[in-house]
Amino acid sequence: MRIRNKPWASDFIAQNPQYIIPNPEELKGNWHKLFGNDNPIHIEVGTGKGSFITGMAKANPHINYIGIELFESVIVKALERVIELGAPNVKLLQVNAADLLNYFAPSEIGQVYLNFSDPWPKKRHEKRRLTYKGFLDIYKEILIDNGEIHFKTDNRGLFEFSLLSFNEYGLKLNYISLDLHKSNFEGNIMTEYEKKFSEMGQPIYRCEVQFV
Amino acid sequence: MRIRNKPWASDFIAQNPQYIIPNPEELKGNWHKLFGNDNPIHIEVGTGKGSFITGMAKANPHINYIGIELFESVIVKALERVIELGAPNVKLLQVNAADLLNYFAPSEIGQVYLNFSDPWPKKRHEKRRLTYKGFLDIYKEILIDNGEIHFKTDNRGLFEFSLLSFNEYGLKLNYISLDLHKSNFEGNIMTEYEKKFSEMGQPIYRCEVQFV
Repeated sequence: MRIRNKPWASDFIAQNPQYIIPNPEELKGNWHKLFGNDNPIHIEVGTGKGSFITGMAKANPHINYIGIELFESVIVKALERVIELGAPNVKLLQVNAADLLNYFAPSEIGQVYLNFSDPWPKKRHEKRRLTYKGFLDIYKEILIDNGEIHFKTDNRGLFEFSLLSFNEYGLKLNYISLDLHKSNFEGNIMTEYEKKFSEMGQPIYRCEVQFV
Repeated sequence: MRIRNKPWASDFIAQNPQYIIPNPEELKGNWHKLFGNDNPIHIEVGTGKGSFITGMAKANPHINYIGIELFESVIVKALERVIELGAPNVKLLQVNAADLLNYFAPSEIGQVYLNFSDPWPKKRHEKRRLTYKGFLDIYKEILIDNGEIHFKTDNRGLFEFSLLSFNEYGLKLNYISLDLHKSNFEGNIMTEYEKKFSEMGQPIYRCEVQFV
């Protein structure tokens, strides 16, 4: 993703602490209180411009969503969408995925979504891929027992790597599509990337894996 | 595959018992004697017209190959190729894959190849797919410890089903490509189908899984 500097972004984020949570470490173990209910909490790691997380929040009012995105100039787009939606069940966090254990307690999360994650195609960067075992360790810690990761991407190399990584980790494969938009999967919420790449005829890969 | 009746096929097969083994149940546990060496024995289940098995036999003289194909009108094409190659390390068997335990002893086989297997797309036929757990039970029995299945297909639905089936069975995924001809995999021997479908721009899916 091309990231433009947006000088107004910091102010805009600071002005909306009810949507982009300013001190998330203080909420560790207490996210349910913030949402004011005991509904499951699903997170999207790398939420980008927020189409997916806001679409999911709208479609599933009894699930709480937290979109996690590091880049300020990107998360402000998600913030605009969250404000526009005006729903109580979606929040944003501007933090690094590698630090999630600082913000979530064990078993606090019901499900993890990874959508069109950065493929980091160079072998020497494989530890940065969000499906690398180091990240799986983190998801396992914060997920409920038998928690699931739902992952989709247009990047063949990343999907191949991820299937190997999931298998090596002992995750159970519950669902796989090698061309999501030609499959009979229902209720798909598209991301910005997904719209763009699927219109170009690129297959979208998707899988659901479960810690067992 | 369209299968034409070939009235001369039975005679042609009967005339070549050194290539299409007529009484394979008698060789159970003794295939090494037939080949006259202790080299590993690899089988291709559903060998079709024999391009793959003869290509592999030519490329790997220190491995013995057995191509298994039920249909007479198809296996005669493989027989022509085996005769043309004239190599001592490739044989053919005209038997049903469901009966392999009648012809091979435990641990007698070093590796199983499945190439462009019949997808049996209807759910009620899933037990006929060569990657269904019933067949995995058979392969496990006749394979050496830590034996591998190498599988490729152009059929997306069959590949998705197979990845789920392999994972459910607890197989280790050692290799995967979702577009073999655009990958850096070396030494690929193409089947007849593969040539045809890859020329049409269809991705070829390939994986290697291991019993552990």
